[in-house]
Amino acid sequence: MYGRYTQDLGTFAKDEAARLRLQEGDTPRPHRPSELLEYTQGRCGPCRVCALQCQRFLISKVGEDWVFLILLGLVMALVSWAMDFAIATCLQAQKWMYGGLDTNVLLQYMAWVTYPTVLITFSAGFTQILAPQAVGSGIPEMKTILRGVVLKEYLTFKTFVAKVIGLTCALGSGMPLGKEGPFVHIASMCAALLSRFLSLFGGFYENEARNIEMLAAACAVGVGCCFAAPIGGVLFSIEVTSTFFAVRNYWRGFFAATFSAFIFRVLAVWNKDEETITALFKTRFRLDFPFDLQELPAFAVIGIASGFGGALFVYLNRKIVQFMRRQKTINRFLMKKRLLFPALVTLIISTLTFPPGFGQFMAGQLTQKDTLVTLFDNQTWAKQGVSDEFEYLGILEAWHHPRANVFVTLVVFILMKFWMSALATTIPVPCGAFMPVFVIGAAFGRLVGESMAAWFPDGIHTDSNIYRIVPGGYAVVGAAALSGAVTHTVSTAVIVFELTGQISHILPVMIAVILANAVAQSLQPSLYDSIIRIKKLPYLPELGWGHHEKYNVRVEDIMVRDIRYVTLNCKYRDLQQVLHGTKMKNLPLVESAESMILLGSIERSQVGALLSSQLSPQRRLLTLRQKVLSEDGHRLSDSSIRFQISTETSSGTPARPALRKPLKPALKRRVPSSPPDSPPAGSTDHTGIALKSLFCANATTDPTEAHGTPYHKAKRVRISIVEEMILGDKMTPAEILEWEEQQLDQLVDFSSAKIDPAPFQLVEHTSLHKTHTIFSLLGLDHAFVTSIGRLVGMVSLKELRKAIEGSLTGKGVKVRPPLASFRDSTASTTEADTTALQQLWDRHQHHHMPREAGPGGDDDDNTPK
Amino acid sequence: MYGRYTQDLGTFAKDEAARLRLQEGDTPRPHRPSELLEYTQGRCGPCRVCALQCQRFLISKVGEDWVFLILLGLVMALVSWAMDFAIATCLQAQKWMYGGLDTNVLLQYMAWVTYPTVLITFSAGFTQILAPQAVGSGIPEMKTILRGVVLKEYLTFKTFVAKVIGLTCALGSGMPLGKEGPFVHIASMCAALLSRFLSLFGGFYENEARNIEMLAAACAVGVGCCFAAPIGGVLFSIEVTSTFFAVRNYWRGFFAATFSAFIFRVLAVWNKDEETITALFKTRFRLDFPFDLQELPAFAVIGIASGFGGALFVYLNRKIVQFMRRQKTINRFLMKKRLLFPALVTLIISTLTFPPGFGQFMAGQLTQKDTLVTLFDNQTWAKQGVSDEFEYLGILEAWHHPRANVFVTLVVFILMKFWMSALATTIPVPCGAFMPVFVIGAAFGRLVGESMAAWFPDGIHTDSNIYRIVPGGYAVVGAAALSGAVTHTVSTAVIVFELTGQISHILPVMIAVILANAVAQSLQPSLYDSIIRIKKLPYLPELGWGHHEKYNVRVEDIMVRDIRYVTLNCKYRDLQQVLHGTKMKNLPLVESAESMILLGSIERSQVGALLSSQLSPQRRLLTLRQKVLSEDGHRLSDSSIRFQISTETSSGTPARPALRKPLKPALKRRVPSSPPDSPPAGSTDHTGIALKSLFCANATTDPTEAHGTPYHKAKRVRISIVEEMILGDKMTPAEILEWEEQQLDQLVDFSSAKIDPAPFQLVEHTSLHKTHTIFSLLGLDHAFVTSIGRLVGMVSLKELRKAIEGSLTGKGVKVRPPLASFRDSTASTTEADTTALQQLWDRHQHHHMPREAGPGGDDDDNTPK
Repeated sequence: MYGRYTQDLGTFAKDEAARLRLQEGDTPRPHRPSELLEYTQGRCGPCRVCALQCQRFLISKVGEDWVFLILLGLVMALVSWAMDFAIATCLQAQKWMYGGLDTNVLLQYMAWVTYPTVLITFSAGFTQILAPQAVGSGIPEMKTILRGVVLKEYLTFKTFVAKVIGLTCALGSGMPLGKEGPFVHIASMCAALLSRFLSLFGGFYENEARNIEMLAAACAVGVGCCFAAPIGGVLFSIEVTSTFFAVRNYWRGFFAATFSAFIFRVLAVWNKDEETITALFKTRFRLDFPFDLQELPAFAVIGIASGFGGALFVYLNRKIVQFMRRQKTINRFLMKKRLLFPALVTLIISTLTFPPGFGQFMAGQLTQKDTLVTLFDNQTWAKQGVSDEFEYLGILEAWHHPRANVFVTLVVFILMKFWMSALATTIPVPCGAFMPVFVIGAAFGRLVGESMAAWFPDGIHTDSNIYRIVPGGYAVVGAAALSGAVTHTVSTAVIVFELTGQISHILPVMIAVILANAVAQSLQPSLYDSIIRIKKLPYLPELGWGHHEKYNVRVEDIMVRDIRYVTLNCKYRDLQQVLHGTKMKNLPLVESAESMILLGSIERSQVGALLSSQLSPQRRLLTLRQKVLSEDGHRLSDSSIRFQISTETSSGTPARPALRKPLKPALKRRVPSSPPDSPPAGSTDHTGIALKSLFCANATTDPTEAHGTPYHKAKRVRISIVEEMILGDKMTPAEILEWEEQQLDQLVDFSSAKIDPAPFQLVEHTSLHKTHTIFSLLGLDHAFVTSIGRLVGMVSLKELRKAIEGSLTGKGVKVRPPLASFRDSTASTTEADTTALQQLWDRHQHHHMPREAGPGGDDDDNTPK
Repeated sequence: MYGRYTQDLGTFAKDEAARLRLQEGDTPRPHRPSELLEYTQGRCGPCRVCALQCQRFLISKVGEDWVFLILLGLVMALVSWAMDFAIATCLQAQKWMYGGLDTNVLLQYMAWVTYPTVLITFSAGFTQILAPQAVGSGIPEMKTILRGVVLKEYLTFKTFVAKVIGLTCALGSGMPLGKEGPFVHIASMCAALLSRFLSLFGGFYENEARNIEMLAAACAVGVGCCFAAPIGGVLFSIEVTSTFFAVRNYWRGFFAATFSAFIFRVLAVWNKDEETITALFKTRFRLDFPFDLQELPAFAVIGIASGFGGALFVYLNRKIVQFMRRQKTINRFLMKKRLLFPALVTLIISTLTFPPGFGQFMAGQLTQKDTLVTLFDNQTWAKQGVSDEFEYLGILEAWHHPRANVFVTLVVFILMKFWMSALATTIPVPCGAFMPVFVIGAAFGRLVGESMAAWFPDGIHTDSNIYRIVPGGYAVVGAAALSGAVTHTVSTAVIVFELTGQISHILPVMIAVILANAVAQSLQPSLYDSIIRIKKLPYLPELGWGHHEKYNVRVEDIMVRDIRYVTLNCKYRDLQQVLHGTKMKNLPLVESAESMILLGSIERSQVGALLSSQLSPQRRLLTLRQKVLSEDGHRLSDSSIRFQISTETSSGTPARPALRKPLKPALKRRVPSSPPDSPPAGSTDHTGIALKSLFCANATTDPTEAHGTPYHKAKRVRISIVEEMILGDKMTPAEILEWEEQQLDQLVDFSSAKIDPAPFQLVEHTSLHKTHTIFSLLGLDHAFVTSIGRLVGMVSLKELRKAIEGSLTGKGVKVRPPLASFRDSTASTTEADTTALQQLWDRHQHHHMPREAGPGGDDDDNTPK
């Protein structure tokens, strides 16, 4: 198993190791001793020796993980702090402009609206020009990358710059956007760049497996230094990006995230912003009696409502994106003027939040940070009886409207911010949705808390002591619940504790978060999974929680039985037929059609290469030359040498740049590291008639092929020029066709092809559950099903996805999303009956044939409520 | 892959499902309709129908995961609370006795010493008699079980009872023992029993994979309800028991642990112990300025010192165990009187803590809980200047000695408790080491804190406000650091926050815990891993942190090349030779010795069964009978029928009890579920001469064989009796031998043997890193190495362990434990050189032969300091 990757990697690593050893053994060593000799003669010889040893020692240390993690933490803390500073300055500038123009409302409005529009437009334009990959959250992409898929250009320096600057501008505009998701992406890019930089000191960072581990740690650092929440950061990044998690990565994450959070907060202290290291949004709730047991139902209500709200948010966000895509006319117009959509959205949102206008009903003048600080406030805003009217001081004043209740302000705030956030996160700038959702959740919690406080002015507790209700605590619970519902995580609870610096509300928070998750997971995918589906990134859905049916579906029920294969003793014509007949990227290689013993798998591109080599003009040339040679001696020998050289260089050059890109995994390296004797995959146009039809048919379907194209094209052109010089048109098309037909009837020589000697195998009886586990653990995208060495079928990601997502599996059972069981606990009596019936019916049928299609079975994309 | 388990499980599940369906379809269904018919006639017909539907609905719900998790949480909360109550009562009784006898010191001493001795002795005896598996922590065993290994009798009701009662008595004695580890075990047993109970309502709980997932959740519940720390519980259980963690289990853990912690704390409120739900050891530290930035070095010192302390604790604990085992004379004496050792240890410890005696210098009268409460106290104990002498009130008084400083008391406490705890945890009673270590850590932190407070009476901060140092905060940090160092976890930080209800010291705690881990991991394995090694449980060591060499070791360097195999066309004689020649539990089945194409793997016991079936007396009997039949008609027919029946019953009975044990995985089920036509593995004594030598050679080496023995023995005896009656001694030994020789030359018929059709395969180039990942992910214990279908070698857990633990791998590289790089950052310059040399040397040698032994290379069992 893993043969394909490992063999390549193996070869590569060996070459690389040999190269490094040679370099180390030959190039610097003779250099250094000579240097040493030179100086040992002089006075400061020992000094030099010592310095050199130190240098060597330091370089050897650079390879250590902890050095890398500390550097990563340090860099990210600095980036985070600098960005926070820049964002704060931007927001201050807007406030200052707005405040300075208080003589004229129109001017004020102009300033209030223009400033964010310009910033967002700049951000969108800048990102679009420099690196369109920087748009959006980045968590979906990181999840895909950590699954082992290569996304081009997602971890480059250009994207890093675009993301940092774009994000700073976007957040500086005061729009309801977050920085958490982008920070995960920024930290990952930082890790990738850092490992590339450190690999200048040695080859330690060349390894793919290690780089993936470092990326996982980097995700934790991203969240950790964004919120100064190391524990929550690690957990959140695990939940959001992984299906299976190696506990050893957990260490790395903790180490780096703690260091990063520490530096991030120390910078604030050094900058005199804070007196000492404390939480970002520190709360001061009562410690001795944080909440009453009888308040728990209210917290549960917050949780359930947040679950529905979270699902609605995801749904709304997706619908907006889909609407924008579907409306061709709008779309075409907006596409032409790419910056119009961001500008328009910003205009609408900032107009509505204009403080002297509608903004007065929704605390429009507060920044996101101020909003959170006020919502987590320790006091009760609602009227407590008649006598004590609450004094709104400082920034709290924003929530106070002379003619409206605080409840009205809160409700308006929640409703407006809800759609604004869902809309704003679709703008093509680097932005996340966590923070806006967090704020909305806090406001909702506050609303419930204030209502409770108004309902029970003296608290619920009937004993001697009066413990008033703390609405701030409700706000904390609401924030955790809603953000948990949108992202489908429970670690938002931990983030909330770390953000507020208080853990006294642990049980209400946990209860609300779990309930919110239960509801949201049964209605919608998480925001990140939703984006993954919208962007059509490869993914494997999660297995459901709680349904035992999934344990009864087996591989034999979902596998594809009718697969094309290559036999060891086949002819080139068979290869051609197989390539014509299937679109599979990997073809099984069996001993013979009778025994069907699986020997390995061979890539489609390799089969293509075998074919093209067989039908290649070079071979034809060779045949021709031999014929000619036998006719008239050594006439062509010098040109054949020329040809030889030209292929050598063309296949030799691309090997160099690959060394400078340690993060590109095996898939990308394969092209340069292929042995130089293997012929090019594509061949000249005027030859290979049989082949031409083949490649025309496949050009659009096979990404690996398309991938290698620029290199192949260059080679192809060069070869054809050389060849043209030599041959001209010595053979007529009819002759060529005849020659090719003749060639196709030869037996295939597999010696030059790269064969994966141990493709992943499953047995017919492997359960869907186990198959899913193995696929997600090992990041497979296909596996062959064998029975005592005999190939009987194949399962790919597609079949698995179909089986899991409920489009009816072989046994008529649908498997549902996590926690789905919570949803239909009221209406599933009939379902149980039909399942039993179907099972009875299936008893007579199964074991023999897989059934692909069947009566509907909803997928989990259904609408909420 | 996974073929062995899945096929068995598959077959079993199908049979089982069929059985259940039949049962459901035939037995109760005809019953119910008749019942229905009877009542539909009557008045309350609709009621009955409704009730039946409700019943069926409820039963269908029982299969849901969340029902299971809620039940588990509820049960564990009740168990935890009841045990806490019982323990508190026990401790109260001791205090009451001690207090009541204050007229006579001798009587007081007698009471103080006798009470715990009796309790511990009872606990040890009770556990020993009922279930010796209940002894100790249980976390090491759970780690092994979650890895997929079957430990007999570890999850039974008997063990549950023994553990609960034994633990209550042990903790009630007031010895320095903990309840965390045992609680993990108790929760797991609870889950196992619960799933067995719930399987009475349906077959949902029969699945092994699901049960393993539930066990993982149960571990979290165990920690969660022990400390009322759901988040910390989940994380701790992950760190302690897993190498790879499925994020979907994380959900289950959170859900169940939160529910459990909630109920556990609600019970306390209902019992009027608490006013509302709060933390177990609530602290009231200052929120606005929890600590100064300049105090961080002191926290770091606590972390580093705790790291050394933790390693020393593990070392001491192991040495005590090893000493007790090695001293043959002491050991024999103690073994004879099994209860003497516990009694002796208890006597010593309780004598030393006797409050009027030496105990006055170490707060001996405080229980573990009181000690923690006092250590986390908010006040400063040391003298603050001259004027304000601190008043020791309430239980704090225990720390005050009229003639000794508080520093002296603390130092004595730490030193004494350290060895006492290390000693006490070796007593053969159910007990954990977490809590004692936690207390010692808290005391150490307090010591540092008090020192700091004495050094800086007005705090370090030089600004306007005076912020005094809070020694309680240091105690919290120390507790987290030491317990983290002993268990090699960072989640003790989270546990500490949840236990104290304050998160204000998050950064100091995180820094100290990480430093402590860094130091401890480089010196010693974790306490649990240490116990795993002492108990010789199967394990796979962790891969190191930070060493890139491990990426360069490949499977071909460590695999065993010279393996025995079974060919498809072999003779029985070959099977016999293979069994003689190897001790492997699984033999590869290849097509032929020339092609070496791997077809599958066959278990050793199956090969044995094939052989014994070929040489079995039944077959001989059959041959004989046929001969006899042709001679003199039907003389033996009735006795042959009798024989038939007797084998039927003997192989039929064991199938029944297996159904009642859903948690026993496939390995154990295999014996009863083997088809009744396959003959018994062992055969009669006076026959099977060739076989006898075989089984004599293997009896001691093969546990699977030994496992099946009682059943086989019973069968064997019965058969031999029957046979004796029929045949007497119709064949002479010489005849038998001749017949057997003849049989051995026949070709093997594999049709009756169970073959794993897709054993796990690796390629030669797979890296050690990836191999380790795959082994630990999938819980493998061996894998075959193939190259294009050809078998070239095998890797088992043993080779892998050897390679990882540094006993020199193929490339002369040792891979070290996590964080080991911290240790030798001072002394590894020379090592780098030698490694480079060795690599150079190895270049000429590797690729050709695996080298098993090599020059030393320490394993990580080395002594601290």
